[in-house]
Amino acid sequence: MSKRIEHDFLGEREIPQDVYYGIQTLRALENFHITGIPIKTEPKFVQALGYVKKAAAIANSELGVLDKNIADHIVKAADRVIAGEFDDQFLSDLIQGGAGTSVNMNANEVIANVALEMMGKAKGDYQFCHPNNHVNCSQSTNDAYPTAFRIAIYNKLIEYSKVLGDLAESFEKKGNEFKEVLKMGRTQLQDAVPMSLGDEFKAFATNIREELARVADSKQLISEINMGATAIGTGVNAPKGYAELVTKHLCDVTGLPLSLAGDLIEATYDTGAYVQLSGVLKRTAVKISKICNDLRLLSSGPRCGLNEINLPPMQPGSSIMPGKVNPVIPEVVNQTAYYVIGADLTVTMAAEAGQLQLNVMEPVISFAIFTSITYLQHACDTLRTKCVEGITANPEHTKQMVMQSIGIVTQLNPIIGYEQSAAIAREALESGKSVHDLAVKEKKLITQEKWDEIFTFKNMIHPTFIQ
Amino acid sequence: MSKRIEHDFLGEREIPQDVYYGIQTLRALENFHITGIPIKTEPKFVQALGYVKKAAAIANSELGVLDKNIADHIVKAADRVIAGEFDDQFLSDLIQGGAGTSVNMNANEVIANVALEMMGKAKGDYQFCHPNNHVNCSQSTNDAYPTAFRIAIYNKLIEYSKVLGDLAESFEKKGNEFKEVLKMGRTQLQDAVPMSLGDEFKAFATNIREELARVADSKQLISEINMGATAIGTGVNAPKGYAELVTKHLCDVTGLPLSLAGDLIEATYDTGAYVQLSGVLKRTAVKISKICNDLRLLSSGPRCGLNEINLPPMQPGSSIMPGKVNPVIPEVVNQTAYYVIGADLTVTMAAEAGQLQLNVMEPVISFAIFTSITYLQHACDTLRTKCVEGITANPEHTKQMVMQSIGIVTQLNPIIGYEQSAAIAREALESGKSVHDLAVKEKKLITQEKWDEIFTFKNMIHPTFIQ
Amino acid sequence: MSKRIEHDFLGEREIPQDVYYGIQTLRALENFHITGIPIKTEPKFVQALGYVKKAAAIANSELGVLDKNIADHIVKAADRVIAGEFDDQFLSDLIQGGAGTSVNMNANEVIANVALEMMGKAKGDYQFCHPNNHVNCSQSTNDAYPTAFRIAIYNKLIEYSKVLGDLAESFEKKGNEFKEVLKMGRTQLQDAVPMSLGDEFKAFATNIREELARVADSKQLISEINMGATAIGTGVNAPKGYAELVTKHLCDVTGLPLSLAGDLIEATYDTGAYVQLSGVLKRTAVKISKICNDLRLLSSGPRCGLNEINLPPMQPGSSIMPGKVNPVIPEVVNQTAYYVIGADLTVTMAAEAGQLQLNVMEPVISFAIFTSITYLQHACDTLRTKCVEGITANPEHTKQMVMQSIGIVTQLNPIIGYEQSAAIAREALESGKSVHDLAVKEKKLITQEKWDEIFTFKNMIHPTFIQ
Amino acid sequence: MSKRIEHDFLGEREIPQDVYYGIQTLRALENFHITGIPIKTEPKFVQALGYVKKAAAIANSELGVLDKNIADHIVKAADRVIAGEFDDQFLSDLIQGGAGTSVNMNANEVIANVALEMMGKAKGDYQFCHPNNHVNCSQSTNDAYPTAFRIAIYNKLIEYSKVLGDLAESFEKKGNEFKEVLKMGRTQLQDAVPMSLGDEFKAFATNIREELARVADSKQLISEINMGATAIGTGVNAPKGYAELVTKHLCDVTGLPLSLAGDLIEATYDTGAYVQLSGVLKRTAVKISKICNDLRLLSSGPRCGLNEINLPPMQPGSSIMPGKVNPVIPEVVNQTAYYVIGADLTVTMAAEAGQLQLNVMEPVISFAIFTSITYLQHACDTLRTKCVEGITANPEHTKQMVMQSIGIVTQLNPIIGYEQSAAIAREALESGKSVHDLAVKEKKLITQEKWDEIFTFKNMIHPTFIQ
Repeated sequence: MSKRIEHDFLGEREIPQDVYYGIQTLRALENFHITGIPIKTEPKFVQALGYVKKAAAIANSELGVLDKNIADHIVKAADRVIAGEFDDQFLSDLIQGGAGTSVNMNANEVIANVALEMMGKAKGDYQFCHPNNHVNCSQSTNDAYPTAFRIAIYNKLIEYSKVLGDLAESFEKKGNEFKEVLKMGRTQLQDAVPMSLGDEFKAFATNIREELARVADSKQLISEINMGATAIGTGVNAPKGYAELVTKHLCDVTGLPLSLAGDLIEATYDTGAYVQLSGVLKRTAVKISKICNDLRLLSSGPRCGLNEINLPPMQPGSSIMPGKVNPVIPEVVNQTAYYVIGADLTVTMAAEAGQLQLNVMEPVISFAIFTSITYLQHACDTLRTKCVEGITANPEHTKQMVMQSIGIVTQLNPIIGYEQSAAIAREALESGKSVHDLAVKEKKLITQEKWDEIFTFKNMIHPTFIQ
Repeated sequence: MSKRIEHDFLGEREIPQDVYYGIQTLRALENFHITGIPIKTEPKFVQALGYVKKAAAIANSELGVLDKNIADHIVKAADRVIAGEFDDQFLSDLIQGGAGTSVNMNANEVIANVALEMMGKAKGDYQFCHPNNHVNCSQSTNDAYPTAFRIAIYNKLIEYSKVLGDLAESFEKKGNEFKEVLKMGRTQLQDAVPMSLGDEFKAFATNIREELARVADSKQLISEINMGATAIGTGVNAPKGYAELVTKHLCDVTGLPLSLAGDLIEATYDTGAYVQLSGVLKRTAVKISKICNDLRLLSSGPRCGLNEINLPPMQPGSSIMPGKVNPVIPEVVNQTAYYVIGADLTVTMAAEAGQLQLNVMEPVISFAIFTSITYLQHACDTLRTKCVEGITANPEHTKQMVMQSIGIVTQLNPIIGYEQSAAIAREALESGKSVHDLAVKEKKLITQEKWDEIFTFKNMIHPTFIQ
Repeated sequence: MSKRIEHDFLGEREIPQDVYYGIQTLRALENFHITGIPIKTEPKFVQALGYVKKAAAIANSELGVLDKNIADHIVKAADRVIAGEFDDQFLSDLIQGGAGTSVNMNANEVIANVALEMMGKAKGDYQFCHPNNHVNCSQSTNDAYPTAFRIAIYNKLIEYSKVLGDLAESFEKKGNEFKEVLKMGRTQLQDAVPMSLGDEFKAFATNIREELARVADSKQLISEINMGATAIGTGVNAPKGYAELVTKHLCDVTGLPLSLAGDLIEATYDTGAYVQLSGVLKRTAVKISKICNDLRLLSSGPRCGLNEINLPPMQPGSSIMPGKVNPVIPEVVNQTAYYVIGADLTVTMAAEAGQLQLNVMEPVISFAIFTSITYLQHACDTLRTKCVEGITANPEHTKQMVMQSIGIVTQLNPIIGYEQSAAIAREALESGKSVHDLAVKEKKLITQEKWDEIFTFKNMIHPTFIQ
Repeated sequence: MSKRIEHDFLGEREIPQDVYYGIQTLRALENFHITGIPIKTEPKFVQALGYVKKAAAIANSELGVLDKNIADHIVKAADRVIAGEFDDQFLSDLIQGGAGTSVNMNANEVIANVALEMMGKAKGDYQFCHPNNHVNCSQSTNDAYPTAFRIAIYNKLIEYSKVLGDLAESFEKKGNEFKEVLKMGRTQLQDAVPMSLGDEFKAFATNIREELARVADSKQLISEINMGATAIGTGVNAPKGYAELVTKHLCDVTGLPLSLAGDLIEATYDTGAYVQLSGVLKRTAVKISKICNDLRLLSSGPRCGLNEINLPPMQPGSSIMPGKVNPVIPEVVNQTAYYVIGADLTVTMAAEAGQLQLNVMEPVISFAIFTSITYLQHACDTLRTKCVEGITANPEHTKQMVMQSIGIVTQLNPIIGYEQSAAIAREALESGKSVHDLAVKEKKLITQEKWDEIFTFKNMIHPTFIQ
């Protein structure tokens, strides 16, 4: 295999001739071997690096600090990176030291070599297009890396929101389908008062739909970038007006509503937006886990559980128990939620570990947030298509449970008072008799007519006040 | 001691004649003995319970489901609870089972007995004013408790925001005081490029000020209440129009912009607002912990550390090392932050544990959020008054460090290029020589005039682009 | 009120004449106002400080570095502190900066003044018995504080283990009581195969009993102390042989099997034993939470849930739903578990924040561990006395559920094979027929005799292999 | 591509003829798409499944419930799985629903088809060797999966311990190399008293070495298995004596000291051993993170930091700051620690979510523990080979810092008393003078001879008591 020689201030190294990355990427590959999960598994991140380099080249050229020809070639090379042509050149481990320097240099090196190739020059002949002097012109890892990270997050959130919204819709649809299904509502796992299964499913839809607003909050925080901050926020080595100009170009090339942070020193070390976003993902995980717990409870049985709903059978449930079908989809979603909650702690610790002018732990924050969004998106999609859409109800069984329950006594409170209701409840529990028989027949506390007026389906699920 | 007899459907119990609470509070005192921290330690929570009972009595009276005389006495009794007169009657443990039933019944019982007393009746003579039938009329624990909790949180956040804002201001003020102090900026704990100590402190102010906006988000989410939901959100036992009316009255009596949730079934079990708020408190904890870590780093020494700033000495630092003064205030703030981060996990787990129509773990969520706000508020106040306001700088020392550093070579990049700068950096490191001597005297890469143009104070802290 | 003047190297302060603490404790009271929970809430910690000071005085006297008369008075004063006579003098906040210096100085000051009083001298006349020179002789906060903390933990764990063991016993006893109760076992909330309720409860006993062994591990780790390390582990200012001698005396005065760490520099900053212990408490919390979740599931209903067992009713369950009784005791235990899990995160973060020769976050570790042990102990005791001991079973109902279940088909596998069993299961589910009717009557796959041989009580709960 | 038809009780599906897995694995591939990380990335887990199936076949054959010829072929097929020949057939996502049923069935199907092939039968012709009836004979997922998981963990821990021990050794070696290097010890980041850099590094070795004992504890807990429990621990469908026999064979085939749990019902749902192990991994992460924080602090600078040690330069540290070299290896290790700490939370939540007779969340526990061990092992290896082994000291600089420090005044305490020492310290701090000049020359508190006796290298790092 043909090789070329590259050097940095630590010395010289051989690089395979056919690769587009250079010596600094090579060092990163050697230095960081933790997860085995490379940058290329997040193509939106590679793409975002392309956007950053492209916008910077345009701004630098316009401000006269970068030769127009070189800038043009950087733009063309960046466009090919944006298109995904060189994803396979982004190989360093997602968890890495150096605060993302290796990722930024990986982009600088690939774009420089692609540009060189398009100029008709040899890869590595950096005098014509240099990874640091030209591609990284007016930038530092400390602004280029977080900006690319934020663009990637933003684009991932767009896709994620769609999937989350679809899940809410599928619950809403089931809510409509089940609106005539009477069932017992439960608080503290104890029989409470009747409700409609449809309203229970619509509440799931409401619950998830609220998350869309929170993701929108996150998108707003994440869209604030620090291009032009360079090393620590003082803007050293960037020309006057560059920060604003590169931000404008970055909006153009990405189509996103990015804005420049007001305090670049703070913005360069602050990880608050990641903590907020991770908290939002955690909140969604908590909610979806609760919903899946409910789905598993409601479908428990079939004979020795609640048995209110049926989840679509996806696979035989046991290697030993014939005919057993398990709620495997909610189960895998619960587990994804626990992953996301754990990843939020990783983000918390990494954020707290920032020191002075930089938070060097940003790569593990990237790792945690990228995987959380991806896994959660997969889980929501799985839950909708392989579970929610196929759920059916057992309306006869649920109605029968309501009518034999003690909880319906609550609706007699306004008529016979809390204490008399409590006495009936107690007697029903001890004797096994029904509330109806005790209230209407034995104790004659209300008439059958009144009973019938109160215990209509409509009045059980959306009670009017009857005294 | 004189006693009265009260009963509930589990039986009869003796209650000391002089207490205003009743049998259900007594049972709670016996049942829940975990933390030893009673409800009364959160007087804003007791007050909020008074608000809820007052607004409900007014609405019930207006809707004709509660006798006007009884309602009036409930209102008067509630006003005295709101005023804090009966805080000492709220004794049950903050962590309790029953989803807050004991707290709600505690309020119902105290207000009933205060009302009875004002009516000239004996405590416990509940036929004239009954804890359940009258004080709790049209309510359930499942709407009254979370509503009171949210009002209490809202009022605590008002106070907390003020303290947080004051802390930001004190950093801003120090930022102005230190604006002429030149110092070395550091990334990854390694010398980077120069900056102003004032800008470092202003960034702390920015960092904290952003939290005020997040708290405002939380206040908005927390202001959504579910009064009228009663047991599970179907509004069983509440008269038509009650939910809207009681919400309106609650806005009036509290002076807060409360709103009624759109989906009462969802609102009755959802804990999303608490998870969001707890996440915001965690984010603030993370940021303040990072800032305190920085303060401790910057004041390290005095002779074998960075020694850039001096924290006001608050106490002798050692029982064995004479003259040692430690950064005890940032240290206690760090530890408070760890508490808050831990408490956020408690909230997360409790939120995930909700089942079906209710989250029964709300009391421990209350415990975690109440203590987190209080402790964080104390920590911010302590940090401002006992530390930040008294910080002084060591400007001679910090300037000297900058001028002897290698990091200033970065500013030569646009003139001599990254690679030549790197060579100088390397030689400086190995030889112990200064960048100035190498660049100007030995290698004559730039003139003394150019050097002087670049390395002015102004150009070091807010660099212009010089080629 | 009469005052005395004390000074330290930061200046002079007035101290009320009647208090035994001195100027440094006063400063701590002013500096640390976070939780409002003072040291005296942990009397075993105050006691342990007394043990440390007593043992140190004896060792110092024997080694000739402390005047015998002063030492004798320190010992006497320490004995009174050990007896709890001065608990009310230990007022500083449990969360504090300074790595415990304030707590150590509090002990030094109180013991010095008690000794002075016993000598017939005025409080504050430290020339005759000085907090630093005499009471703290050969010690630093950095060895005295963690040693006292560890002794306090050890003694708390003794009490805690007892309570944990009692809880296991109560489950074991119920296990025996329920051994003849046939019920359906469930995996993934789906009906699985039959079992005995007694075996389910015995498994709870096993589950908790394993924790006793883990607590014993913790006690062993926690019993390693670093007395004699003084400031950073080099033993500066301690006489030769002191470390070993004071450890021996500390074993004698406490009656505990303490041992001296092998590497005093490591031992002075290491918080590994706390992390391990907190992890053990977390594990117990996880297990007990799972058990309480099960108790709540098994007692769900009464009519629309599993209804296998009945928890003793402790209080009316609802302010609106008459007759409702909730599982309030398991609920409060769940919540305690979430507290402990959150506190473990606090310990984790505090432990990670140690720097160089000391972990300055040890006070918040103390706070978290002290409260976790106490709360968990209360929770276990509450669970046993107010819930487990009063649980009853519904054996008729649980047996009926088993016999009508599909899960019993598993026991036919060895005879008719997994696939034929699965076919029966499917048909039973779809048709509503029983496994018995399908297997014996309709399909005649086995005879009634064989059926009867298989489905005895004994063979269902402890199956033998029948082909 | 050629296909075969397979069926389960949910219906028929086409399977590519060349694959060894069957219909249930196919369903798992379709159902679980979360992380994209397949089982085969943990070859020790695939191997362990082979061990389990092999031992079961031998035991079943010996007990006469499995035909000897079939058993022999299962053993041979399992041996090939153990050897890693079919790793590429284990494709389902590590995070999955069904409590591991898909993994267990994957093993059952692959082994059945390999056996069939060796018998000269067609893949899928399960009458001759059936995944459930033969390969899974006397097993359930609920014993086979956790047993295989535990064997895999055990074998991973053997490898991991080796790497952890090597890291401790490398610190020990550096400790010896640096034993003559005098440096300032620091508590609370403030100058404390002198010490040897060698002792600081030896303490790192001690700190890590203690983890080896904790891993050994975990190995002991993890070696307890529940083979023979089958579905829920009652041993349904397993022949008498099987549990003990299969355990014995499993010890033989694995070479590990496995033991059978005493309470199989408890053992089938209990995840305590995983929680304990995850806690141990977390503890190690906490410690290694603290050590890396220290390495970064000690190497901070080079000119504006502590600059006590030099880490080997691994890559250029900045895309903009020439000559900057960052502590990238400790940084990546810190980040790995945060991952492990987050993963521990995932394990905690998953463990708490167990219900009744099974913990269905075991797959995400596997995911978290497998990745934590692997990443931590990589991190330890990286830290040793790319950082610790190449660390050098700056002894002149560290000695100079000690001698100009104020902290050395502590060693004068026994001679001049704490208060006079404090006065000198204060004056030194304010005047900038040295302790030596103040104590010996100006105040003549001790003679130069006494000074020289005290401040020898030996007496500074391992002080004797001099009065």
